[in-house]
Amino acid sequence: MSQLILLESADKRPDQGVVEIGFGHKLNKTMLMSPPSKAIVYEQHGSPDSVTRLVNLPPVEVKENDVCVKMIAAPINPSDINGIEGVYPVRPPVPAVGGYEGVGEVYSVGSNVNALSPGDWVIPSPPSSGMWQTFVVKEESVWHKIDKSCPMEYAATITINPLTALRMLEDFVALDSAGDSVVQNGATSIVGQCVIQLAKLRGISTINIIRDRAGSDEARESLKALGADQVFLESQLNVKNVKSLLGGLPEPALGFNCVGGNAASLVLKLLRCAPNISVFVHFHLTSRCAEGKVKECREMIDYLLGLARDGKLKYETELVPFDEFPVALNKALGKAGRQPKQVITF
Amino acid sequence: MSQLILLESADKRPDQGVVEIGFGHKLNKTMLMSPPSKAIVYEQHGSPDSVTRLVNLPPVEVKENDVCVKMIAAPINPSDINGIEGVYPVRPPVPAVGGYEGVGEVYSVGSNVNALSPGDWVIPSPPSSGMWQTFVVKEESVWHKIDKSCPMEYAATITINPLTALRMLEDFVALDSAGDSVVQNGATSIVGQCVIQLAKLRGISTINIIRDRAGSDEARESLKALGADQVFLESQLNVKNVKSLLGGLPEPALGFNCVGGNAASLVLKLLRCAPNISVFVHFHLTSRCAEGKVKECREMIDYLLGLARDGKLKYETELVPFDEFPVALNKALGKAGRQPKQVITF
Repeated sequence: MSQLILLESADKRPDQGVVEIGFGHKLNKTMLMSPPSKAIVYEQHGSPDSVTRLVNLPPVEVKENDVCVKMIAAPINPSDINGIEGVYPVRPPVPAVGGYEGVGEVYSVGSNVNALSPGDWVIPSPPSSGMWQTFVVKEESVWHKIDKSCPMEYAATITINPLTALRMLEDFVALDSAGDSVVQNGATSIVGQCVIQLAKLRGISTINIIRDRAGSDEARESLKALGADQVFLESQLNVKNVKSLLGGLPEPALGFNCVGGNAASLVLKLLRCAPNISVFVHFHLTSRCAEGKVKECREMIDYLLGLARDGKLKYETELVPFDEFPVALNKALGKAGRQPKQVITF
Repeated sequence: MSQLILLESADKRPDQGVVEIGFGHKLNKTMLMSPPSKAIVYEQHGSPDSVTRLVNLPPVEVKENDVCVKMIAAPINPSDINGIEGVYPVRPPVPAVGGYEGVGEVYSVGSNVNALSPGDWVIPSPPSSGMWQTFVVKEESVWHKIDKSCPMEYAATITINPLTALRMLEDFVALDSAGDSVVQNGATSIVGQCVIQLAKLRGISTINIIRDRAGSDEARESLKALGADQVFLESQLNVKNVKSLLGGLPEPALGFNCVGGNAASLVLKLLRCAPNISVFVHFHLTSRCAEGKVKECREMIDYLLGLARDGKLKYETELVPFDEFPVALNKALGKAGRQPKQVITF
């Protein structure tokens, strides 16, 4: 249909391609293009280490409302892995570029974009697909401009796990700093570590359940160092009067489960039960960042970034260069034992 | 200190007592008094059938912001029984008059009361103690004026069980009428029956769990007649792939437990689990009707009363004259098998 003719660079960035589309003799539109991109793509669902590969992608158009972002860093999350595996009832269409969060620098902007400029740091909020690539082009509304004072490994990882922890703490019940507690399993996860620290900042006690496995003593100590009030091994809770283990802590009014099975029952056993009514909510971050809640989520994210900047919200990450993606993926898949959150740098 | 002198009736109601307090020779205040009241009182915590008794109470002052209400009807709820038993961590102080909800007619009002007049129907909202008596005096702010078009047995019982059902459905997750469901145990309770009907009105499917006991076939049919989509006996759910029982229904995003123990685990087994994060919330109606939420709760109550008036919200009640309170109490205590909600009439 249209014939692409590369013209001279004359746009917002001297080093980017500008293309005019000509239909026969009539030149009728100037097109801003992204640089070519390198991306981790999967063409079918399956085991991530066998279906993902690095692909060179051609430049794409940066439309009038679009922003082209040069990615700085993006993590490998369990939800990325599950998405590639296709284990969710709703499977992302393939082929697809992996990754749902990350931080980048604005590289170029479409003609209608006013709130963002080249050089700004941005993150997709709500999380958005295709972050595992060097240049991402998405509509302006996808991007949330952030302060550059927060370390990039936190900026890259703030929109999923820390926000999940914050929304779980704040969305369901008004917790009272004078005497409320929460109970969670999977406490060593990033979400779990964030719950501990965010609760501590609010004067809320945390009761934490971790798995019986090698290194559990160290895990307990590191969670206590983050502010955990109680840390139990699952095996410690297989007793009749489990609430006697709470010591002086109030019975929790809120419980978080990210493990399932028997570990979920252990959370329930510790939950306050007088009066005996409880509500179980399937938690899905997507619905909590949906239309009408984006502004609220972005304010929460700014709050979390501030905490990370000030050292009040901490978790371990490992930065891995993009060309070593397979190594990071193997670690994220748990093939090398427990590892810090893997964060790709571009 | 003060010497009470009964003066002539000269106030808003011709048949009520008016008292002036005189300090020696100086008469300085006109005092509006309630009629004497008959009340169900408990002087210590314990088994309700042994610690409650009918007591004649003397008139009390109706202060300038107070409203004196002649009670029409009040139910015996499980929470009333638990309160008398003192099984909650926070015990109500004794001696106390029982009952936390009911409907009455305004009998007289203090001099500062403008929004309520004798003859109005009112209910305490949020629920308030001491409703098992013929005349209740409480501040105007306690009372919510309601439309008289709703049958009094529903007006008497709307603020606890139906409101619990509505808040459980609405407070935690945005349910989608296009394909969401909820799962609950204790489905034959009033809360459970209200959940079924309120969900149905919203296009939300319900998956209901009932106990294995005599009459369970009839219980299943009556819940289906209310709109239940699926009704399972607990024993039916002791299978490996429990979700295959859901048939075409979507996996529930929300679960309600008012039974505990294994029955709570059955709710969890049916809850949606991909992605596998769930939040368990201890539900306490008191905190959901607290300061700042009263107006919202009263609007919800008006909505529920309208549904009851229109026959869209139904549950079985049995009206029992006040002087037969012990009979109603025995039924409420379950001593005569499964019974309709016992509602005292005054």
